[in-house]
Amino acid sequence: MIIALKPGVDAGKEKQLIDWFKEMGLGVHTSVGSERTVLGLIGDTSKVDMELVESLEIVDSVKRVSETFKMCNRKFHPEDTVISVGDVKIGGGNFAIMAGPCSVESEKQIVEVARDVKAAGAAILRGGAFKPRTSPYDFQGLKAEGLEYLKIAKQETGLPIVTELMSITDIPLFEDVDIIQIGARNMQNFNLLQEVGKLNKPILLKRGLANTLKELLMSAEYIMANGNENVILCERGIRTYSDYTRNTLDLSAVPMLHELSHLPVIVDPSHATGIARLVPPMALAATAAGADGLIIEVHNDPMHALCDGAQSLRPEEFATLAGKINAVRTVI
Amino acid sequence: MIIALKPGVDAGKEKQLIDWFKEMGLGVHTSVGSERTVLGLIGDTSKVDMELVESLEIVDSVKRVSETFKMCNRKFHPEDTVISVGDVKIGGGNFAIMAGPCSVESEKQIVEVARDVKAAGAAILRGGAFKPRTSPYDFQGLKAEGLEYLKIAKQETGLPIVTELMSITDIPLFEDVDIIQIGARNMQNFNLLQEVGKLNKPILLKRGLANTLKELLMSAEYIMANGNENVILCERGIRTYSDYTRNTLDLSAVPMLHELSHLPVIVDPSHATGIARLVPPMALAATAAGADGLIIEVHNDPMHALCDGAQSLRPEEFATLAGKINAVRTVI
Amino acid sequence: MIIALKPGVDAGKEKQLIDWFKEMGLGVHTSVGSERTVLGLIGDTSKVDMELVESLEIVDSVKRVSETFKMCNRKFHPEDTVISVGDVKIGGGNFAIMAGPCSVESEKQIVEVARDVKAAGAAILRGGAFKPRTSPYDFQGLKAEGLEYLKIAKQETGLPIVTELMSITDIPLFEDVDIIQIGARNMQNFNLLQEVGKLNKPILLKRGLANTLKELLMSAEYIMANGNENVILCERGIRTYSDYTRNTLDLSAVPMLHELSHLPVIVDPSHATGIARLVPPMALAATAAGADGLIIEVHNDPMHALCDGAQSLRPEEFATLAGKINAVRTVI
Amino acid sequence: MIIALKPGVDAGKEKQLIDWFKEMGLGVHTSVGSERTVLGLIGDTSKVDMELVESLEIVDSVKRVSETFKMCNRKFHPEDTVISVGDVKIGGGNFAIMAGPCSVESEKQIVEVARDVKAAGAAILRGGAFKPRTSPYDFQGLKAEGLEYLKIAKQETGLPIVTELMSITDIPLFEDVDIIQIGARNMQNFNLLQEVGKLNKPILLKRGLANTLKELLMSAEYIMANGNENVILCERGIRTYSDYTRNTLDLSAVPMLHELSHLPVIVDPSHATGIARLVPPMALAATAAGADGLIIEVHNDPMHALCDGAQSLRPEEFATLAGKINAVRTVI
Repeated sequence: MIIALKPGVDAGKEKQLIDWFKEMGLGVHTSVGSERTVLGLIGDTSKVDMELVESLEIVDSVKRVSETFKMCNRKFHPEDTVISVGDVKIGGGNFAIMAGPCSVESEKQIVEVARDVKAAGAAILRGGAFKPRTSPYDFQGLKAEGLEYLKIAKQETGLPIVTELMSITDIPLFEDVDIIQIGARNMQNFNLLQEVGKLNKPILLKRGLANTLKELLMSAEYIMANGNENVILCERGIRTYSDYTRNTLDLSAVPMLHELSHLPVIVDPSHATGIARLVPPMALAATAAGADGLIIEVHNDPMHALCDGAQSLRPEEFATLAGKINAVRTVI
Repeated sequence: MIIALKPGVDAGKEKQLIDWFKEMGLGVHTSVGSERTVLGLIGDTSKVDMELVESLEIVDSVKRVSETFKMCNRKFHPEDTVISVGDVKIGGGNFAIMAGPCSVESEKQIVEVARDVKAAGAAILRGGAFKPRTSPYDFQGLKAEGLEYLKIAKQETGLPIVTELMSITDIPLFEDVDIIQIGARNMQNFNLLQEVGKLNKPILLKRGLANTLKELLMSAEYIMANGNENVILCERGIRTYSDYTRNTLDLSAVPMLHELSHLPVIVDPSHATGIARLVPPMALAATAAGADGLIIEVHNDPMHALCDGAQSLRPEEFATLAGKINAVRTVI
Repeated sequence: MIIALKPGVDAGKEKQLIDWFKEMGLGVHTSVGSERTVLGLIGDTSKVDMELVESLEIVDSVKRVSETFKMCNRKFHPEDTVISVGDVKIGGGNFAIMAGPCSVESEKQIVEVARDVKAAGAAILRGGAFKPRTSPYDFQGLKAEGLEYLKIAKQETGLPIVTELMSITDIPLFEDVDIIQIGARNMQNFNLLQEVGKLNKPILLKRGLANTLKELLMSAEYIMANGNENVILCERGIRTYSDYTRNTLDLSAVPMLHELSHLPVIVDPSHATGIARLVPPMALAATAAGADGLIIEVHNDPMHALCDGAQSLRPEEFATLAGKINAVRTVI
Repeated sequence: MIIALKPGVDAGKEKQLIDWFKEMGLGVHTSVGSERTVLGLIGDTSKVDMELVESLEIVDSVKRVSETFKMCNRKFHPEDTVISVGDVKIGGGNFAIMAGPCSVESEKQIVEVARDVKAAGAAILRGGAFKPRTSPYDFQGLKAEGLEYLKIAKQETGLPIVTELMSITDIPLFEDVDIIQIGARNMQNFNLLQEVGKLNKPILLKRGLANTLKELLMSAEYIMANGNENVILCERGIRTYSDYTRNTLDLSAVPMLHELSHLPVIVDPSHATGIARLVPPMALAATAAGADGLIIEVHNDPMHALCDGAQSLRPEEFATLAGKINAVRTVI
């Protein structure tokens, strides 16, 4: 941590500050310039409250040099992490498409969609059993029953399943789920992150509505620090003042996260835009940007979908898209 | 719900759409204009997926006329809700200051701060025992032990206490807490909202980092729909591209929420700015904007605070501020 | 325009409102529902202040049905506009890469870069002579001298040139410029838009820092309404709370603008990210999303560039990228 | 400028970087730590492209220590600037209310409103003659004719006038205007800033739609660096994802700008909210936050206003508000 003092500060106050740092067990390297003094802190500065130091009268500015994320940091783990789910691999050059309906509505529906997306090239089946909804009056998912239907679809097609967990108390129900999704609204539900950090299965961690990349990585760190290093990061659009799309898909997050971290990064073009006809161009763009996979909403009857019908592709639209995605993959 | 069709749509498709609405049990009022046809839906349109309808080829735009929040809606409950905590009242013209440290650090610390803030005019003691932190490596609060110290401070001073709950599994520990706070990061942790909705004590619901007023009200609705109508709304700053403050305090939320809802609205100037010297002007501004109360961080030794020292006032600064707040209260 | 009144409004006030609309020469279509009355306005509602109507006591909500952009609206002009600059075409399936340095620094520099980018496949040369800079103390461009060097580079290579105009008073200097760029900060400099609307050459209109797509289209409308229909829209990243990139590239703007308007849409991945190593993935993503072209910063010596060196590609990096862009173009 | 290198960088590359800085005439202070080397640059670092340095392979992070705004910086000018307009003073403890219609519509209208706001306590008359409008089809103001009516209103009431300038070419028309307003959309129209910097009259500079405080101060610096030090800063709401208000009023800008700069800071609650009934609470909040003045839209017939009627107060509402503002002023 580097602390620039204001010009002409009182020597007594400067000494007081240096003593305070030493009291915390830190080394202090003082560099006296023509205009001002700069302090460099040596040691574990993670317990120093940067904002507090910045607010002190004699301090001009503070800069933290070392990053606070460790386990997900590429600096300490240069090779790509590859997540394995059955025969499917994600990351390190392996690309996988997850597809399926926003919510599981019936056994028939999920089995049909599973067959359709498998035929079109999806490697993993998605489908929500527990649904976070803004309104308490909206459909909240089939819950445990929905999980059962997902497992039947898995048996019928062999596709591994990914589905969202909303509450610690539901964890026992997720034993046969292949990948547990933590949704955008729970990205900073730290108790939930800690608990899935104790499990031995991949976690798909979605970026929160207005969270920075650093916050996303710190949330991955919560999971990893509890023992589970199988984390897949997911960009799904952030909130801005955009007027025609639900969110703004931040595709520069893909190469940037790859640079900062060794974890695989996938993209959800369905929630990012909220509009089915924008899903194909955004899915292709995400592929071209270097994503390790996609998670796409597909419904066999969007007009009667119980949630998010507006952003769901029909199976035949998905099949066409999957072909184009492969074509883009081969040229980049 | 009002649906404007595009000019010159195919009569067959229009009929198909009308039949689909009727199938859902809705009445459809058709108004044929010179340029286009407008459909008005009559009945419970809450199950109609507005975005799906908007995405249909023949539809130009959709407008939901009735609001989706009911129990917190002022239209259905014109009088202000007044929350009572012991002798303290909040809302309906009653103003209360909640003050105390970001986190409870020791029995001595919290008892001392409690005495100081009581002497200065605070009506309720705040203090975090469970702390949501971006990094898993930061201090996470004293947890159950912190709650015990808060109760001791309450016994010593008579001040009711407000403190944050992060997980459903900790609810039994909060029996003697007077007001349960739901933090910004958990504003859309719907399972947690449902559970505190089953309790019989006031809930202080903080607006999420980037949530709209409507989303805040829908989260209050989650609590109320489960039986607990004692909800206090709290504006605490939203995330923008501001360069000098941690967040941007959105004070227009105060009169706007008062117009939309009958629930009391308080303001947290400490988290909104992250800088202690901005807390007094923002606290006075919130008071002038019509807030029903304030929640302010006060620490007897900000330099050694375990979290958020940068935004904490010293007790004597708080006392001066409390005096000015009262003066502003008397003139508006 | 559709106006939903509140339930149970006073008949006198409703009549007063209807009379007021009639006074403006509008037809009023009244639709009485079970719960509320809805008014539909017929005629030219562009002079009705929607926000004023929305603020009236008896009005619940207002919805404008017809779009305010006309000349750039695809509804009124279904075929793609194709912009021609010499032999180069942009839009309607024609793709063009514009490349060159952020600012023109010398005759030698711009001629060298022009040769390099031409060899690598660029169709148009970019380079700033007039530079908008946040600080008055930063390099502001070579101005008229820079324009002369650009023209020399054009003569030497045959590449048409695009460069930014900042002030009405400089228009006479731009006679030999092929495409005039209006920068993000001037997107709502309406006087400048009106003046370039009177010229007979293509205008490259960049989206402002935090402007919506509708505002971008309304600014295109300013140019077109003055007689110049040769407008190229450019997405260049919007301001958010992103922590690692300068701006957030909003690629969903590409398909959305194509849907709303017939004008060509290009993307600037250099300003969007501010980081050279993110330019290739974002350029490929923009191509995959369906952009009609790209504008990319290329410098032969980024370490000594007078501005924006951090986001400039070296000529050999650009050549590699141009090859990949073509490969993506062939598969989508 | 402080540059932290990555751990274990190549000595040759480090030397190359240091030589490059020396080539620019800068001194380089090298501080070798246990983990990494930190370089401190001495001299005029304003020409160093911080982002370029940050992008170098061997560099971990860069921090600019000295601020780039000089003339408006409170560090170099500790006393408050007081702007005088006739007998009216703004800043340094002097508070002034500017009031009047969004746009000048007729001689009768502006003279009437001028009399009304003067009687209610306004010190300065506002009114737009040149109106920046998102749509080319909306009313653009009475232009030169509007300026004439403003001057008549000034003669009739003695109130100084403030009105917006949009284009360099209109400057000669503004000779008798007391304060020239630069609107939010032109905050980074640098040519316009330079030209008003050559005038000898106060400039009211509005913060742009999504500009940071630093950018606002740099724009003030453009004006001051050209010779005109009479700048009044104005916070008028920034663009966010707020759902019920037009913009989000950022009141923490008031104390923060006062800390960074010696220039007076006023607030525009009318444009910030876009809703007349939110203007009084926000005006009182701005006053309590320490603003040096307010600029408020008042219209004698909001229902027939040609622009922004929704956010205009009636004269009697303004009079009531002015009384409350004075009351708040006396207690803070």
